[in-house]
Amino acid sequence: MDKILVINGPNLNRLGTREPTIYGNDTLAALEKQLIHFGESKNVKVECRQSNHEGAILDWIHEAEKEYSGIVLNAGAFTHYSYAIRDAIASVNIPVIEVHISNIHAREEFRHHSVIAPVAAGQIAGLGFKGYELAVLALLHEIS
Amino acid sequence: MDKILVINGPNLNRLGTREPTIYGNDTLAALEKQLIHFGESKNVKVECRQSNHEGAILDWIHEAEKEYSGIVLNAGAFTHYSYAIRDAIASVNIPVIEVHISNIHAREEFRHHSVIAPVAAGQIAGLGFKGYELAVLALLHEIS
Amino acid sequence: MDKILVINGPNLNRLGTREPTIYGNDTLAALEKQLIHFGESKNVKVECRQSNHEGAILDWIHEAEKEYSGIVLNAGAFTHYSYAIRDAIASVNIPVIEVHISNIHAREEFRHHSVIAPVAAGQIAGLGFKGYELAVLALLHEIS
Amino acid sequence: MDKILVINGPNLNRLGTREPTIYGNDTLAALEKQLIHFGESKNVKVECRQSNHEGAILDWIHEAEKEYSGIVLNAGAFTHYSYAIRDAIASVNIPVIEVHISNIHAREEFRHHSVIAPVAAGQIAGLGFKGYELAVLALLHEIS
Amino acid sequence: MDKILVINGPNLNRLGTREPTIYGNDTLAALEKQLIHFGESKNVKVECRQSNHEGAILDWIHEAEKEYSGIVLNAGAFTHYSYAIRDAIASVNIPVIEVHISNIHAREEFRHHSVIAPVAAGQIAGLGFKGYELAVLALLHEIS
Amino acid sequence: MDKILVINGPNLNRLGTREPTIYGNDTLAALEKQLIHFGESKNVKVECRQSNHEGAILDWIHEAEKEYSGIVLNAGAFTHYSYAIRDAIASVNIPVIEVHISNIHAREEFRHHSVIAPVAAGQIAGLGFKGYELAVLALLHEIS
Amino acid sequence: MDKILVINGPNLNRLGTREPTIYGNDTLAALEKQLIHFGESKNVKVECRQSNHEGAILDWIHEAEKEYSGIVLNAGAFTHYSYAIRDAIASVNIPVIEVHISNIHAREEFRHHSVIAPVAAGQIAGLGFKGYELAVLALLHEIS
Amino acid sequence: MDKILVINGPNLNRLGTREPTIYGNDTLAALEKQLIHFGESKNVKVECRQSNHEGAILDWIHEAEKEYSGIVLNAGAFTHYSYAIRDAIASVNIPVIEVHISNIHAREEFRHHSVIAPVAAGQIAGLGFKGYELAVLALLHEIS
Amino acid sequence: MDKILVINGPNLNRLGTREPTIYGNDTLAALEKQLIHFGESKNVKVECRQSNHEGAILDWIHEAEKEYSGIVLNAGAFTHYSYAIRDAIASVNIPVIEVHISNIHAREEFRHHSVIAPVAAGQIAGLGFKGYELAVLALLHEIS
Amino acid sequence: MDKILVINGPNLNRLGTREPTIYGNDTLAALEKQLIHFGESKNVKVECRQSNHEGAILDWIHEAEKEYSGIVLNAGAFTHYSYAIRDAIASVNIPVIEVHISNIHAREEFRHHSVIAPVAAGQIAGLGFKGYELAVLALLHEIS
Amino acid sequence: MDKILVINGPNLNRLGTREPTIYGNDTLAALEKQLIHFGESKNVKVECRQSNHEGAILDWIHEAEKEYSGIVLNAGAFTHYSYAIRDAIASVNIPVIEVHISNIHAREEFRHHSVIAPVAAGQIAGLGFKGYELAVLALLHEIS
Amino acid sequence: MDKILVINGPNLNRLGTREPTIYGNDTLAALEKQLIHFGESKNVKVECRQSNHEGAILDWIHEAEKEYSGIVLNAGAFTHYSYAIRDAIASVNIPVIEVHISNIHAREEFRHHSVIAPVAAGQIAGLGFKGYELAVLALLHEIS
Repeated sequence: MDKILVINGPNLNRLGTREPTIYGNDTLAALEKQLIHFGESKNVKVECRQSNHEGAILDWIHEAEKEYSGIVLNAGAFTHYSYAIRDAIASVNIPVIEVHISNIHAREEFRHHSVIAPVAAGQIAGLGFKGYELAVLALLHEIS
Repeated sequence: MDKILVINGPNLNRLGTREPTIYGNDTLAALEKQLIHFGESKNVKVECRQSNHEGAILDWIHEAEKEYSGIVLNAGAFTHYSYAIRDAIASVNIPVIEVHISNIHAREEFRHHSVIAPVAAGQIAGLGFKGYELAVLALLHEIS
Repeated sequence: MDKILVINGPNLNRLGTREPTIYGNDTLAALEKQLIHFGESKNVKVECRQSNHEGAILDWIHEAEKEYSGIVLNAGAFTHYSYAIRDAIASVNIPVIEVHISNIHAREEFRHHSVIAPVAAGQIAGLGFKGYELAVLALLHEIS
Repeated sequence: MDKILVINGPNLNRLGTREPTIYGNDTLAALEKQLIHFGESKNVKVECRQSNHEGAILDWIHEAEKEYSGIVLNAGAFTHYSYAIRDAIASVNIPVIEVHISNIHAREEFRHHSVIAPVAAGQIAGLGFKGYELAVLALLHEIS
Repeated sequence: MDKILVINGPNLNRLGTREPTIYGNDTLAALEKQLIHFGESKNVKVECRQSNHEGAILDWIHEAEKEYSGIVLNAGAFTHYSYAIRDAIASVNIPVIEVHISNIHAREEFRHHSVIAPVAAGQIAGLGFKGYELAVLALLHEIS
Repeated sequence: MDKILVINGPNLNRLGTREPTIYGNDTLAALEKQLIHFGESKNVKVECRQSNHEGAILDWIHEAEKEYSGIVLNAGAFTHYSYAIRDAIASVNIPVIEVHISNIHAREEFRHHSVIAPVAAGQIAGLGFKGYELAVLALLHEIS
Repeated sequence: MDKILVINGPNLNRLGTREPTIYGNDTLAALEKQLIHFGESKNVKVECRQSNHEGAILDWIHEAEKEYSGIVLNAGAFTHYSYAIRDAIASVNIPVIEVHISNIHAREEFRHHSVIAPVAAGQIAGLGFKGYELAVLALLHEIS
Repeated sequence: MDKILVINGPNLNRLGTREPTIYGNDTLAALEKQLIHFGESKNVKVECRQSNHEGAILDWIHEAEKEYSGIVLNAGAFTHYSYAIRDAIASVNIPVIEVHISNIHAREEFRHHSVIAPVAAGQIAGLGFKGYELAVLALLHEIS
Repeated sequence: MDKILVINGPNLNRLGTREPTIYGNDTLAALEKQLIHFGESKNVKVECRQSNHEGAILDWIHEAEKEYSGIVLNAGAFTHYSYAIRDAIASVNIPVIEVHISNIHAREEFRHHSVIAPVAAGQIAGLGFKGYELAVLALLHEIS
Repeated sequence: MDKILVINGPNLNRLGTREPTIYGNDTLAALEKQLIHFGESKNVKVECRQSNHEGAILDWIHEAEKEYSGIVLNAGAFTHYSYAIRDAIASVNIPVIEVHISNIHAREEFRHHSVIAPVAAGQIAGLGFKGYELAVLALLHEIS
Repeated sequence: MDKILVINGPNLNRLGTREPTIYGNDTLAALEKQLIHFGESKNVKVECRQSNHEGAILDWIHEAEKEYSGIVLNAGAFTHYSYAIRDAIASVNIPVIEVHISNIHAREEFRHHSVIAPVAAGQIAGLGFKGYELAVLALLHEIS
Repeated sequence: MDKILVINGPNLNRLGTREPTIYGNDTLAALEKQLIHFGESKNVKVECRQSNHEGAILDWIHEAEKEYSGIVLNAGAFTHYSYAIRDAIASVNIPVIEVHISNIHAREEFRHHSVIAPVAAGQIAGLGFKGYELAVLALLHEIS
């Protein structure tokens, strides 16, 4: 059975309380539960992690290569300046799909540019929690 | 039964012959057939159009409001300068999801910026033909 | 009797339904009727056209030179990138006055710059439908 | 009877002698006389002032709120850097219409950008002295 | 016998009347006649088209691939923003040579940059109608 | 007893009526009264002036050197372009603390940059009228 | 009794030894001691933390919401690129005041811009250790 | 006998006390005295004025046209943003020579650009008080 | 018999060995021989020179005016920064046609901009050695 | 015996597997072993550390001051945005030499700029593992 | 007797024939003769050289230090890009005064910026041949 | 025995007298002697040249290919604008290592960017004369 790693970055532990007009009222726990169930329905094992530490995310990406078939990554604000995460993605041989809950292109200027997009397999933005499910589907398509 | 309009913009009629290392070997006809079948499997009617004329795309977006529940739009190169298409999307009350076959963020500088993204419901890029299917799913989710 | 051509560009056929907080609730038909009446009261024949096709607008500008004394042009979003319309204006010997319903300088950054303004006889912005009447007056003043 | 204040900014006292190929041969006195007559014909009292002092213009805008129904403002070169005038306009509850005799968009780069336009009710440029009359009409329309 | 397609873009139908100090006094008809004769003298069939519609130019480029050995393209103002034409050129397997009558590098800033040049086989600018003949020669050289 | 000069720049005479959602409902007179009382409680004489004239503010800064121990300056919109005020501050040997009622960094782009900050002793922004009191405290700390 | 959290970011553990001409000769321990005493004199409990780890600062901001009435934050160099800290501040419902010991506007270009200022309640810069005391006063004012 | 007007702008009344490492130790009074004597030795009447008020400088430039043969202008910090002074210079028919005591090109970035230079007859910078004498010589040469 | 001077700039002596995928395998000697023969067939005397010294190229352009009817110039990398060559071209009364072997617009960013193009009679790029022949033809056309 | 600390930053633990066409096939372990041997041959003790955590690198730089004579730092992608590392280097009194395995100036635009270079003692780039040895030699030279 | 070296850079040997509307009708020989006479009248020996070779100008600046009291330099177009000349000026201990015949600030954008001005003693622009005499006077003043 | 060519560019003949706080007190002769001795100790023949003429440096790079195994190049100020030197390096098949005595990244903005770095094998900056020795070592490593 394929395994997919879902990584949520900084401040995404605040989902549900953080700016609900932008991110909705559901919590990170609810998102993770939804994705695990979705994975089961598609016969793939989904595992979820969250960290506010850039270094932890780098470590997870490195280690994922051995055990997972792909990564769904919402790097939060790191999306806009962490060239280290970009290099980590470029250094592994499994596909990484970038997800954003909100439409980053319709918000502040600094959110329009993703430094990790050029090395990601693809980008899905603005489709809420649904975007994570679509990313899982895309990974399954890529793997098969 | 919901109806979804898929609009492909300039040069996408060249799919299959146009730069296959970037866009793959499948034709527009194949893509459209695939999407209609996919729609049937999801119980939604998918209709497909293509034009190299910006004005035609504007007209189609305007008219779609009455008959379709949402639009999947690959605006091709118009993505990067057609503020008229942006305004057309903003002028209708149905969701529009932007799709790109290739990862536009990993190509030439001018392809990194989409002038229509700020008014689209969401953006899916880099996932090949699969991206259109994900966009249909996202629209169905949005509508329900 | 002088004849004046009023050209409305892309998405202006959506007036009344399109973002009414910005453009008001009145329709294009209402605007055109108002302008024809206004023309009659000033003893000038006003004719109105609208198109979403850049090429059609170019053709109209070219042809107008033979039959009209001046043009009132709201080029919509083409204002911000159509150097072709700019060249068309520069290629005819009748005055063209640029009109915008909303105050383009108080909206998104990309609307602050007009590529056609340098070759227009003048620009009127932010004064709603009234702006078209003022443009007709300005043309009459210019002609006489 | 409504009262409208016309404010001309720096160097406009030089009209008639200042670069006549750009600004024409008529003097400020002639312009002011023309506007007062025009006001009479429209049943509105037009008062005119001119100053080369930014501070004086700020004071006039502040005071105008109590006595006038609107302001026609040609801020001259202050248009391009006086954020103080911008703030003054934003601080009063009467409409201000920005006028320029010449087509500022067809001149030097620095004249293309108006720092006061975003808070003005509208902008009229390039129509010579006629532009002031149109601005008065626009104010009357706004007030009624 | 080789066939070459000459495409003239927006406003070039105005040659002869349009800004003669820049473009000269000869008409498009004269240019096309000259090129057909020149082609005959070089034993190549030259066909000429002109359109103000970006979409029409895209269609022509696509279709040319089957019938012509190369394209001489003066895209007029589209040169500076039509990434769609750029993509059309990149999508066909025949050489396209970009021609400009005037020296675009000695005119307004926006004319200095061509978005289609990176995918053209070459660029000839500033040499008047003669530039088209040189482009035909270059194509013949390329083909042989 | 130390004396401190508080200078308020353009449009700050409009406090209370000017955009109250940004600047609050209290007037300049109230602010000045509050600061004088605050000064008394700290055993320092606070004097307050306001002007819309850049030149007047320059004159006051020059003269202050002889009589005051420091200046609290809210230069209003001059903050963003008056290099003359910057030079005036640099030319005197008493500390100047820059105050802004609103958080200038959370407003329009042009308000993010202060041309006088590099020569001020410090900057306090976004803390309402309280910011002036803090500036007085900072000056007292600096002086002692 | 209200509690206030003071967070010092990267390299501020080096105070006293780090570039004393810019930051002074006093240590972080001295600063923290001074602030605790100052808090006692104002009847508020001040707690101080320092970290060189961006992730730790994010965690602290998140947790502070439950226990503290406000945060005084000197984010050090993170001020200039950590959009993650910006998002963390935006995600909590207690005021955060940004403090800088030195006048960041008078130093290197990159220090002039704070990515966290737009979501902070206010900013105090250039006033040395005194700036922290003023920030505590401002928080007390905000809370009451 | 020719008359030359020397205008010193904002903060130049501070000469001698203002940043002496940049501007030297001599006062404005000394400079003016030196220039009057220099004028006498060259048989030209030199008159000197100074103001911190932009509006006053505008008025003086306007009035100078009737009475003086030329102007020597050190506009101080106004040099870098007063497009109003630029327009004033352009509106008079006597030559204006721009002088700067210090080498503005070797100081802060914002001092490198003069908005008045394009309309001045010439510019002399970095030569201290001597620069004013050279400007007087240049005017005499221009006049004769 | 007309004489034409062909000047090749820096590094073009390396033709044949220098990056052959860009510049081809033929040598400068071959190019010069080809051009001389081509000139003979067109009844014009072609002379060829090459230098890596900017100053030498300046001298040759100056001297050419007396003896040659026109210049074909490939300025190599000087194209992108030698304003001195630009001024030299502007200082002579014979036409200069700029040639580039490769398509400079499809290479590194810095090669897209030519500082000499605004003063050249025309520009031919991307057509290999053939471009020089076309330039000779263009000169002959210009001269006759 | 002098001690030198070698710090490798984010993703350098991936050496050997990470993009070998850029970074080569040798591992971090091999590099560290090579440097320790090289140190022994030069009579200096080399110690090596690697972390993906910016905070850890900051801590190590701070602590190094007491025990090491200098630091060789390859900050990986942190090079391009970690102003915190820049400040850490500036806060210690031992020399830091910046090393990059690949030629960062020949890669993506964002890699051309190092925010730490201005405070480093020197920079060595593009010389592979050999660059670390040269950095050790440079430190020894600096120390002696 | 003091000796002053006057260096004229590229294309200034063309004076008199080169763009006379900008540079006048007098030749370099006339200018040099005028300056030698002027020097004699001021009791200083003036020597003049001209070169189109940047390297020659560097050599002359280096050598001048031993024999001349100062340099008057019109670097022509080198002014705008020759950082090598800038470094040469910075490397010698005699004053260098930059002269431009035309008002470089009123011409093309690229002429507004001088890379040598920051290290020159002063700059004189726009005053024709007279500017050289003023530069000689300035040097004499500097020396004495 | 391998031969290495060391080329020093403009103004480096001034070493020892030129800005000794930046470049040290030792002369070019001393540097060259040191490098020759260093070469002998490493069994490689080092030859040294210096020129202020860009063209001479181009010639030397071209010729070096036949006789030397590599080049150590300090291009001085040419580093920042000589695309011709860049092209020369790209045209030869021997490695070139760029050296700078001072830390160019810690000096004026224009020195931060090297136009030759993208085609150099590597770059060593800020390590004084020692940097040349390291460059020789790097070349020996590259060659072997």
